[in-house]
Parts: sequence; C-alpha cells; structure tokens
Amino acid sequence: MSKILRVNMTNLTAKFEDVPEKYKLTGGRGLTSAITCAEVPPTCHPLGPNNKVTFATGIVTGTTAPTSGRISIGGKSPLTGTIKETNSGGMAPQKLAHLGIKAIVVEGQPKEKGKFWLLKVDKDGARLLPADNFVGKGLYETYPLLFDKFGEKVGIIGIGVAGERLMANAGICINDPQNRPSRYAGRGGMGAVMGSKGLKAIILDDKDAPGVHIVNKEVFDAGRKKLTDALQEHAITKPGGALHTYGTAVLVNIINEAGAFPTRNFSDGRFEGAAKISGETINENCKKRGGVGTTDHSCSPGCVIKCSNVYPKPDGTELVSVQEYESVWSLGANCGIDSLEVTGELIRLCNDYGVDTIEAGVTIGVAMEAGLAEFGDGKKAIELMHEIGKGTPLGHIMGTGAAATAKVFGVVRCPTVKGQGMPAYEPRPIKGIGMTYAISTMGADHTSGYTIAPEILGVSGKVDQFDTNKADMVRNFQYATAFIDTSGHCLFVAFAILDIASGFEGIVEECNGVLGTNWTMDDVGRIGGDTIKMERAFNEAAGFTKAHDRLPEFMNYEKLPPHNVVFDVPDEVLDKVHAP
Amino acid sequence: MSKILRVNMTNLTAKFEDVPEKYKLTGGRGLTSAITCAEVPPTCHPLGPNNKVTFATGIVTGTTAPTSGRISIGGKSPLTGTIKETNSGGMAPQKLAHLGIKAIVVEGQPKEKGKFWLLKVDKDGARLLPADNFVGKGLYETYPLLFDKFGEKVGIIGIGVAGERLMANAGICINDPQNRPSRYAGRGGMGAVMGSKGLKAIILDDKDAPGVHIVNKEVFDAGRKKLTDALQEHAITKPGGALHTYGTAVLVNIINEAGAFPTRNFSDGRFEGAAKISGETINENCKKRGGVGTTDHSCSPGCVIKCSNVYPKPDGTELVSVQEYESVWSLGANCGIDSLEVTGELIRLCNDYGVDTIEAGVTIGVAMEAGLAEFGDGKKAIELMHEIGKGTPLGHIMGTGAAATAKVFGVVRCPTVKGQGMPAYEPRPIKGIGMTYAISTMGADHTSGYTIAPEILGVSGKVDQFDTNKADMVRNFQYATAFIDTSGHCLFVAFAILDIASGFEGIVEECNGVLGTNWTMDDVGRIGGDTIKMERAFNEAAGFTKAHDRLPEFMNYEKLPPHNVVFDVPDEVLDKVHAP
Repeated sequence: MSKILRVNMTNLTAKFEDVPEKYKLTGGRGLTSAITCAEVPPTCHPLGPNNKVTFATGIVTGTTAPTSGRISIGGKSPLTGTIKETNSGGMAPQKLAHLGIKAIVVEGQPKEKGKFWLLKVDKDGARLLPADNFVGKGLYETYPLLFDKFGEKVGIIGIGVAGERLMANAGICINDPQNRPSRYAGRGGMGAVMGSKGLKAIILDDKDAPGVHIVNKEVFDAGRKKLTDALQEHAITKPGGALHTYGTAVLVNIINEAGAFPTRNFSDGRFEGAAKISGETINENCKKRGGVGTTDHSCSPGCVIKCSNVYPKPDGTELVSVQEYESVWSLGANCGIDSLEVTGELIRLCNDYGVDTIEAGVTIGVAMEAGLAEFGDGKKAIELMHEIGKGTPLGHIMGTGAAATAKVFGVVRCPTVKGQGMPAYEPRPIKGIGMTYAISTMGADHTSGYTIAPEILGVSGKVDQFDTNKADMVRNFQYATAFIDTSGHCLFVAFAILDIASGFEGIVEECNGVLGTNWTMDDVGRIGGDTIKMERAFNEAAGFTKAHDRLPEFMNYEKLPPHNVVFDVPDEVLDKVHAP
Repeated sequence: MSKILRVNMTNLTAKFEDVPEKYKLTGGRGLTSAITCAEVPPTCHPLGPNNKVTFATGIVTGTTAPTSGRISIGGKSPLTGTIKETNSGGMAPQKLAHLGIKAIVVEGQPKEKGKFWLLKVDKDGARLLPADNFVGKGLYETYPLLFDKFGEKVGIIGIGVAGERLMANAGICINDPQNRPSRYAGRGGMGAVMGSKGLKAIILDDKDAPGVHIVNKEVFDAGRKKLTDALQEHAITKPGGALHTYGTAVLVNIINEAGAFPTRNFSDGRFEGAAKISGETINENCKKRGGVGTTDHSCSPGCVIKCSNVYPKPDGTELVSVQEYESVWSLGANCGIDSLEVTGELIRLCNDYGVDTIEAGVTIGVAMEAGLAEFGDGKKAIELMHEIGKGTPLGHIMGTGAAATAKVFGVVRCPTVKGQGMPAYEPRPIKGIGMTYAISTMGADHTSGYTIAPEILGVSGKVDQFDTNKADMVRNFQYATAFIDTSGHCLFVAFAILDIASGFEGIVEECNGVLGTNWTMDDVGRIGGDTIKMERAFNEAAGFTKAHDRLPEFMNYEKLPPHNVVFDVPDEVLDKVHAP
C-alpha cells in the first residue's frame, strides 16, 4: 500500500502516513491541489510557516505507461498568490512512485534561519540530513556533489540559489537521464517555498523499492497499448515526427507565421529573427556540429515522444540541454535576441541558478522595456541573469519575476496575469489561449489548456484563431488538462489523444488498471473539473475575483502587429468559462 | 461660480468646465472619490493612460474657517491598486480655492515619453508650459527655481525624482508658508500617477482671484466661531497645548508607554530610545539650540493648531521641517534609530526626492529585516535613501515601498495592508486601529479613522485598547473622517470636536454657510458613509474582497512584546464593520 510522507521542518521529522480514503483515487495535480486546499490557509503568506509544498506523482507514474514520468508540485505560489501546481519529468518522479510514496508533504519552517536540509528517501525510510555543503552554489556544481555522495542512480528534486534566497521565480529542479540539473517544475516560484522550508533537495533512491501496485494488469496493459499506438501514429508525437525531430521549438516558425510570436516584450507578433532560433535550426546545428548534439533525447525514461535535445557549441561540446520552444522564445524573441548561442547560455544560467526560463525571459523583456538594456543585447541579458546568481538587489528584482520588475520600474506593458509571465503565444491574435491565460487558476499558463492545438495546429479540428466565442472550448481544455495532469502523463500526449480517441481511452484504462476503477471517457471532465473547481475555491478564499480573470489592460488598447488586433474577448465571455 | 479644470496631457489642453450638479455639494475627498469612481475604470493600470489624478479643495478651504487649508488628491493608487485619497496642507490648497476651482482633473498621457510639463493657473486661465529645466533635480533645488520664475507668492503642487521615475511611493509636494518643499500628500504613490501624466508641477497664482463664494455668511461665521472656540479650548489643540508645544511627536512617549510603538520592523512594541526622538526632546532642542528652531509653526495659513516645527542643527541653522510623529517613528524607532539628527536628515531626503516618510521608513525597516543594513544603522539608512535619488535598481526597490521590497527580498514580516505600510501604531495591542488598517479603503492608514483618540488618548471617552468588539466605533470613525476630509479641515480638528460637540456643529454650519445647505449633525455619517461606500464599490470592482480586509498574517501568530499579544480580532468582527 502506498503512503504519504509528511515532513515537518520545524521538528525535523519525516513520518509515513496511510493514504486517506479521499486521496486514494487521485494523484499528481488532483492530489497536490486537494492537499493544498485541505491543509493550507488560502490567505497565508506563501513563504511563511503555514504554507506547505506537496510533491505527488501521477496515478500511472512509475508504471510502464508511455510518457508518464511526471511529478506535480503544489502549494500556494509566492509569484501569484494563487494555488499552484507545476509539474516536471526527469529522473525523480518514477523513483518516488517506485518507493510506494503517493505524496510528500513538507510543512513548517526550521527554527534556525538560513539553515538547509536534505531529505533522503529510500526503501528503508526517510530522514533529514544537513545540507550545509550543498548550498550557495550553482546547480551544475551542486548536483554532481550530490551524486558523488548518494550515487549516480538517485533522483534529485532540488533548488538553486534562487530558491535559497526565496526569489519568487525560483523553480524546482530534477535531474535528467544523464543527471543534468535541467528539468524544471519551474513555474510559480515553488522553489522559493521549498527554500522557505529550509529544504535544499529531496534525494530518492529506489533500489529494491516495491514499485507501483497495479490492481488490474490486463486492463492496464490494454490501455497502455492504445495510448502507445496513438502516440506512435500521430504526426506530432510519433518517432521521427515533429516533436522528435525538431523539439518543441518546431513551433517557432509556425507561431511566428500566425503573427502570434511575442516579440520585444509583447510589442510585436512577428520576429524577424525567428528562423535563427527555430526547431529547424536547432536540428540542423545538432546534425552539422556533431559531438554531443542531438534531438533524440527524452527527459525521463519511458517517453516515446522524446521532444528534448542536447544543443552543441560549434565545436560539438555541450552548450545546454534543452533548447525548448518556450525558452528560445522567452530568452530570444521576447528580448529581441536571435541567437541560439545566447538563448543556450541564458537557459544554462536559469538551470544553474534555479529559475523558470519563461518567467526569466519575460522578466528580461520587461527590464529591457524599463531601459536596463536594449532589446537584442544578448551580452547585457546574460549580465542581468548573472545578477540573480550574485544576489544583488537587481538580481533580487530579476529573480522575483516580471510583475515585480514592472512594479519596481513603473513599466505599464507588463505581460502577466495574476503576477505570472505569459508564455510564447500572443493572446491578441489567438483568442482562446488569451482566455486560457485569463481564467487559469494559476496565472498566465499555456499548459492549463493548450487551445493552440485546435486554434493553430488543427489538432482535434481547426478553429479560427480570431474567433472570440470559445468559452466552452476553453473550459473543456482546462478540465481535460487537469485530468491528464492527475494521471501522470506529460501534456504532450494531448496532440495524439485529441485526434485519436482510442488513445484517450487508453489513458482512462491505464488509470482503471492501476486503481481498479471503472472510469469511462465521461468521467474525464468530471474528474478534471472537480480539481479546477477546488482550485478556484482556494483562489476565491485567497481574495481572487473575476477582476483578476483578465488580461493586462494594455492588450485591450494596444494593437499588435502584424494583424493589428487588440484582445477583444468580452468580459462576459471570459466569465462564462467557469460560470456557463 | 466655481469650475472644474480638466487637463488633458495627451492633447496638452486645459479647459474649464461647469461643475455638474452632482458635485456641487461636495469637495475634498468626497469629490476626488466621486470623480475617480465616475471616470476611472477600476481595473485600469494606475500608471497607464486610463487613470486620472484629481486635485480638489475642501468645501470650506479658502475661507476663514480655522485649520481648513487642505487639498485632497485622488485617483487609483499604484501602491495599493485601490482608490486613493491623500490630503495635505501647505500654501497651494487655499490658492486653488481662491481661483474658483473646485477640482483639477488630469487625464491622458503625453505622446512624448519622458517629457514633463508645468500647469500654470492664475486668474487669467490655465496653460501648460515645458518643464524641461525643472526635472531630474532634488526639490530643494527645484522649488526655488520655480519661485524665481513664477514669483514667491505662488502655491506649488509638484513631484520629485521619485514621481518622475514612477516609483510607487512617490508623494506630491506642496510648499509651506516659507516655501519649503515640505508638505506632502504623501501616501499611496499619487506622485507616480502625476509623473505618469508627465505633469511635474501645478503653479497656482491667486493674485486678484475671486475667492470663495459663501452663500450664507452669517451661518458660516457662527460655525467658524464654534469651531475656533473648540480648537482654542481643547488641551490638545489649543495655543500652548500639546500639539502646539511638542508637535505630533508628543505621541512618541505616549504610544511607547502603551506598548504600541512599532520598533525594528514591528518586532517590538516599545523602543528603548523613544525619549530621544520624542516631542519633548524636539521642543527642548528647538529652545536650547536657538536659531531657526521653533515649534510654533503652521503648515498653512489660518491654522490655529500649529503642530509643525522647524528643527535646528546644533548650531541653530535649519536641519529640516518637519519632525512629525509619523516620520520620527518610521525613520527612527521602526529602523531602531534613536537620533533626531538622523531622522531629520532622512526626512529632508524624503522631501528632496519626493517620497512619503511613513512608507519610506517602513520600507527601510523591511530592508533591514532583509539584511541590507543592521537595525539602528543610521548611516546605512541614509545611504539606502540616497539610492532613491540615484535611481539605482536598489533605489527603485526602496522607492516602490515596503510590500515590493518584502516581495523582492522574500521578507515575511511585512507590515502592510493592501500594499501600504502601516503607520506608527501597533495593531496587536490597539485593536481598533488594527481594524481600521484592515478595513480602510486605502490600505493601512491611521488617518482613515483615528481610533487612537478614544483607545489611547481618552478623547471622546476612553475605551480599552485590548477590547476587540469595536466594529461600530471603527465604522463611525471612518464615516466621520470622510466627512472631515470632504469639508477641507485638517483631521486634527477631531481632537477638539470629538470632545466638544459645538465644535463639530461648527464644521457642519461652516459647510452650510458656504453651500447654502441645511445639514445637521445627523448628515455627517450619511455624507461620510456615502463616500466610503463609493470607495468600497470601486475597490470591489478592482478585485478587492474581504480577504484583503485583513492584517498581515504574521500579526496573527507572532506575539508582540511587551504585552505579548497577537492580533486577535475575529474575521467576522472585521467583516461587520462595513456589513453590520
């Protein structure tokens, strides 16, 4: 029987508890949000003693289900003040599941301020160890030291100096299959919450661990096959398909062509340098430069999509893993930078200091708007990132994210919702994603409902990107996504399962196999919807209203080239998403 | 007939309009809040094109009513995001009234970014002039340049570099009777709104101006006499009384004795160095040092209370005007500083750069908590203030106020409500003022309802400072205060009129005299209450809920010495203030 591990940082205790009945049929986001709603006062200070951070694997994580190696990390966000769930792949999620742990709940705060700890978990139990030797350093230095101490086969969930310093853009880092500190549950500043608990890292050793119990192996296997088939058939997710060949940055040219590639702090929808930072160029350089460069890279074992990459320097040695769409956009086009060498270095610094690449790039864009650097000045952008590492006042500003940077410098063109920086899709010419940003329970977040699939990619049918009547679609995407985030699958399975119904059935059957349930496709919306409603109730109690379910005002009056459109979805339509 | 002057900074026009019927019987805060509610979208960006800043004199301002030289400045606050009214004395309010102008409404934004203008108003009209020669300098340099240009007898309402740089703690400065840049409508960052409009200063020349029309002179005179008598009779407000002799800093020893003098960023209620920064010490040094030092100083003509002072250096030359209670507390005890030389220098820098002293001191306290300086280090505190003048990243943080500073440095002990720093009364041992901070429409604000009068000073009867059942009292104080802020009287008249009923009748009669109304004492609560309700409706539309009508969480679990109490007013009692 799987357990919940409760870690109290005030008393420095780590105790296993039985999983309460109400949590037995959920996992991932469904579980982190349920625990946060049950245990965290909505009005508490995110960095104070009453917040908690919960780590929960998905329902099927740790099984052989394809592309399901995800962990959800949840609590109250210091970036947004809302409830937060941020998920990641990497080597840790499956190990946590193998250890028979459904969730780790970390609460309290050390009496000794500035003291950090490691949580070591293996088949024999869990214990807290002093982290003194592992703080104050970049993660490219720290993670190897941890592997030296605990062996190469552990999973690590840790924070960098940004998290130690309680910066609101601190992410939580998980090692990739080659043990790079490169996979992030980045959004929402949960690294700062971990930092506020004095928890530097969780070390997971699954040697001789029991593994995940599957109630009905036959049902599970049937589901797994359906999903695997769908992933291997769909043009976007199949081996040699778009994501495998070009990575997520395959989107650069597509979104740029759609006039929705946010450029120079959301002042243009098309970037003249897009081709230079595209997936095609990444692929070409990986091939041309040889050495370690490859687009055939996955972030966690068992992924059949393999959208990751290792990007080489001109001499074939490693610059960084991974040049993803969101990162090459945020640290590239959004800052007017058209160089993969620069975006690669900036991504490396984000990984090293422990911050989210999206928020970091949106922050640099705002800083450029404020006059701290010229748009396009890669050298200066790198200097700005280094300030985070140095912990200077400017570094603290940059590490606190775009909304704080805009506030401090009086910048009105601040592309955030509920304090979180917008991802790489301009809402003005793509109305559904704008609605999604506006009404998401966690601030601007494309992964809360990836309506880009129908609006741009033609997945699950094509809808007009400029159509404003999308309340039903946006709601349905939010619900389905919450379900996927609960299952433990990477959201990228959505491309395949939206087009191939049997793939979606496969996910439901995998869950039924693991849990012994009899869910049908009809349960997906209910299960995901229950999570969203719970999250909205938390936010409402925390003080959020429909006035916060809005895009930043400037998008209502500044026309965005090349389509020269404003965001014109009426407030009533936004309000209809969750009150139909 | 008085007019409204509408200034459009986009078109650079200044036009007089008739006063609409609905605004004829109001003034001051009643008018700024009404115009803000009618014309400013509650969800607009405070520094964007859709906010407006309104300057309105009180109903009786510009008449011979005693202590009535106030101007209200309102709009949406960049500090709090709420509606804001902040008022001040100084030489400008009465001149504006003499010019027959009920309000100036400033809207739009210059097309040319970074360009600043002066608004010159005299009996012949209003016009905008380039301000190029008057920007980028300290106000102790700028104001004399403006008086050189426009004559010594003008009133000036202007901003310093903090406002030019859009810092959320930028105040609006008004010259005192000796033309110092020393009187401030400081709170809520309205200086940044003025800055965002490209308006550096308003120059008011009332030579040969028509003056204020009084409908019924007899009624007015009777009221004026009643109020004057009350002010001259009450121990706190009379000539040679507490405020006249010691200034507002007479409160230092009183509040310290009550265990409610916030010390070292609200971590103690009693400051060991209180006596050194007290009103008694100010008075003693003014006498002992001779020279320009005096406690016989008023901020505007016609004030019979004269709570201001000019504080001398040891050699008798001027250090600063004015060492007020809030300032010697915020920049003194709250930073662990027990030197009037240091607080004087810090106040001078606030005046020079154009920031609110309360917020500046609360911000330095938070910065000290964050480790940027040791508590008590006056030299470092002065350096931190200079950063604002230099416009460094750290200066931008400090100029953005306490909440932003806490956010950027991850400080949990952040004594703010709705983003505004708390004034000099600890809410944990004085429950009514804590309730007032919590439910004020404008963030933590003692001037929204000065319940210290009954809770500590025994004015209008004495109530127990620890009693938590004060919803009715808090509401009544808010309503009465909104009326006083509308009348144009300084809030300090409250001491006298709360104890001497005929004084309060006097204010009502003064208003009746000016307006030709027949208000009675029963109308006070209605008129003030209407303003509060209107302000709350604005805030609700802007996204504020009862979750924001709360003190910071740490005050609920950190016990404050010496009484070792937390803030224990139940949420239901807080909610009863405005929903009885």
